[in-house]
Amino acid sequence: MKYGIAMFPSKRLQDEVNSYRKRYDPHYAYIPPHITLKEPFELEEAQIDATIEKIQSIASQVEPVKIVIDKVSSFHPVNNVIYLKVQENPNLTKLHDLLHGKDFKNRDHTYNFVPHITIAQGLADLEHSDILDLMKMIDFHYEETIDRFQLLYQLDNQVWAVHETFHLNKG
Amino acid sequence: MKYGIAMFPSKRLQDEVNSYRKRYDPHYAYIPPHITLKEPFELEEAQIDATIEKIQSIASQVEPVKIVIDKVSSFHPVNNVIYLKVQENPNLTKLHDLLHGKDFKNRDHTYNFVPHITIAQGLADLEHSDILDLMKMIDFHYEETIDRFQLLYQLDNQVWAVHETFHLNKG
Repeated sequence: MKYGIAMFPSKRLQDEVNSYRKRYDPHYAYIPPHITLKEPFELEEAQIDATIEKIQSIASQVEPVKIVIDKVSSFHPVNNVIYLKVQENPNLTKLHDLLHGKDFKNRDHTYNFVPHITIAQGLADLEHSDILDLMKMIDFHYEETIDRFQLLYQLDNQVWAVHETFHLNKG
Repeated sequence: MKYGIAMFPSKRLQDEVNSYRKRYDPHYAYIPPHITLKEPFELEEAQIDATIEKIQSIASQVEPVKIVIDKVSSFHPVNNVIYLKVQENPNLTKLHDLLHGKDFKNRDHTYNFVPHITIAQGLADLEHSDILDLMKMIDFHYEETIDRFQLLYQLDNQVWAVHETFHLNKG
């Protein structure tokens, strides 16, 4: 089964991001706006319990993450993804790194960790640059603290469902 | 914010139900196949923590639920909902009843608790009876044990996101 790990911002932020994703993100219907912590990976039924234990232990080692967003950016020319950039944050980086530690599969990550919330993807070059220019004129500013993240699994229709909710260490 | 409480069956069962919902259930895109434990209710931000504590205490009092499904049914003429009927089960009934106890809002329920997984809804009478006849010819048989349920909140685009995962008491 295919699993992934993600963190969801407040409803308010999700609703705003969705108002753009609806038009510009073909994954809009598959998962609410999120910060990906670990890209999709395969897990056999027999490995799930042990993996959840590892993730639980990691969650207990990391404090809630204060996310600050104040700009739109793009991964172009690597790919045409427009996103809200989440400022670097030591807790978030630690969480990501622990979730890619030696106990885990798919440790290789081709790209550096750039925490973000996707707004648009899969657009042709011209449309991508138009939308990006438009988005850059909008004043995005969000600060909020996220105290949990989730292990999700993907259904055959590509929709992601939640298997488990993990709480960051409240100290 | 609008919250709801639901239980999700295995991926295998969700995938099969989705193959029908895709055509016959306008809520297909809003939430994966589920058993509703508590209909949508409003909750203020300030009440969330206390409500979660109550639900956690309830989860600890109920054992995992073995669900058995072996027929398709309909709520017609009350409404044109076609569903997989989940056989009555004392744990499931207990869970439902505790979630409608005196500590909770929206305790009134107009209908008795008929645990089910919706396949189709909102169809016109004629189509409803055609689809129901068709569905009744399919041999559905599922038995599985569900050990968790979730508190969800609804985004502005009607999609339900998960706030918390509760584990039934494993004894």
